[in-house]
Amino acid sequence: MKQKLSIVKIGGNVIENKPELARFLKLFSKLDGDKILVHGGGKLATQLAEKLGVESKLVEGRRITDAASLEVITMVYGGLTNKNIVSQLQAHGTNAIGLSGADGDTIQAHKRPVGAIDFGFVGDIDGVNSELITSLLEAGLTPVFCALTHDGNGQLLNTNADTIASEIAIGLSGTYETILYYCFEKKGVLMDISDEKSVVKHIDSTKYQELLNTKIIADGMLPKLENCFHALRKNVAKVCLGDMEMLEPNNTLFTTITL
Amino acid sequence: MKQKLSIVKIGGNVIENKPELARFLKLFSKLDGDKILVHGGGKLATQLAEKLGVESKLVEGRRITDAASLEVITMVYGGLTNKNIVSQLQAHGTNAIGLSGADGDTIQAHKRPVGAIDFGFVGDIDGVNSELITSLLEAGLTPVFCALTHDGNGQLLNTNADTIASEIAIGLSGTYETILYYCFEKKGVLMDISDEKSVVKHIDSTKYQELLNTKIIADGMLPKLENCFHALRKNVAKVCLGDMEMLEPNNTLFTTITL
Repeated sequence: MKQKLSIVKIGGNVIENKPELARFLKLFSKLDGDKILVHGGGKLATQLAEKLGVESKLVEGRRITDAASLEVITMVYGGLTNKNIVSQLQAHGTNAIGLSGADGDTIQAHKRPVGAIDFGFVGDIDGVNSELITSLLEAGLTPVFCALTHDGNGQLLNTNADTIASEIAIGLSGTYETILYYCFEKKGVLMDISDEKSVVKHIDSTKYQELLNTKIIADGMLPKLENCFHALRKNVAKVCLGDMEMLEPNNTLFTTITL
Repeated sequence: MKQKLSIVKIGGNVIENKPELARFLKLFSKLDGDKILVHGGGKLATQLAEKLGVESKLVEGRRITDAASLEVITMVYGGLTNKNIVSQLQAHGTNAIGLSGADGDTIQAHKRPVGAIDFGFVGDIDGVNSELITSLLEAGLTPVFCALTHDGNGQLLNTNADTIASEIAIGLSGTYETILYYCFEKKGVLMDISDEKSVVKHIDSTKYQELLNTKIIADGMLPKLENCFHALRKNVAKVCLGDMEMLEPNNTLFTTITL
């Protein structure tokens, strides 16, 4: 039987709030077995950009990463957030190692081709260096990835953290039984958006179709769930959606997704 | 016979100048055998601090690292500079991995005790995790260290890059034949400060005493040389002092120091 590997992704709502982040890191540290953390940067990057007078450029409502924004992101995601997470995990006895996709050539990507919109220095992932990530895990390390990849030609690229998490989980599914945890601001997929307790505890392909038909899953949840099923079809064992409490050993109030 | 390991430290004069840095990284990539790069951050951190209105605090001419300065340093050293160096080395085919001392618990330190001056979040090194650094080297990786360490309790610490380089070289001397390269703005120790060609090509303990007596080595060079001899006494095989040209295979115009 394959060994278990947990890949946990946290979003801005956790990162931006120091006490929340501290609580999350404690929970994450206690997770059994091999694990990997993936984080974005959230509002901290926007705040730094504002202070530095770097304008956030939007085209048709989509954010553009120009050279100045990429510098800010590299400082915040790769530096401030990543190194603070790593040092705090060390304090909990978790031997963390902070990585961008350039470090150890762990995540190769290419600049998103210019179509109707030029997104700037945004990366679409080509591959994950599973062999190296496995050797880090085998050395007892807990990789902590920020949302940066590289093109192999010296260019760093801003990359969606949800996608980084799922691509890592997919890439390591040959060696490990991978479980992907998406921590977000809700307790999972809700039957009634106004009732935090109406969590759909288990979704499989049949249930997913039903939830799509009844429009329970719509809007922002749609791409999230599509991403989950994409990972499952690519041999990820299980995807869990919920707030950080789902890492608590006895908590069952979150959504588990299987094929 | 032990395998050779080169530890190269670069200073602000290289990091701050993009074409110089690019040229250095090309030279560094071509260095034979296992290698480690150590970098500080130089003026980039000061410039960012100024833009953000973070005051540089000096007490008796010594720089103090308060919480705001540490954030700036973490962003610049750990993020911007480190990740850009790593991605550029990847483009040269060198599988670099960027690290602070917190990553993989590679460099343990403690906050410098408050004496006449409270230096703030400045670290004095307690130990280097040679075992983990060796396992990274054995995995074919080239560690790139920024000038940050940690105290094991969640606190990052600003730490002198020269000391990081020598402590790493010392720590790995049990396993490797370590050669320490200090790249700085001069071609080495000069007999005549105004003549760049007057390089003292070899210094041993006897020659060192002679240069001290004749005051050829004085002022800023004194602590630098003391640091070199400290490393040599702790089993580092050789220390080289010069500008980046010393990494050129056929160049001999730099200072080599042995016991």
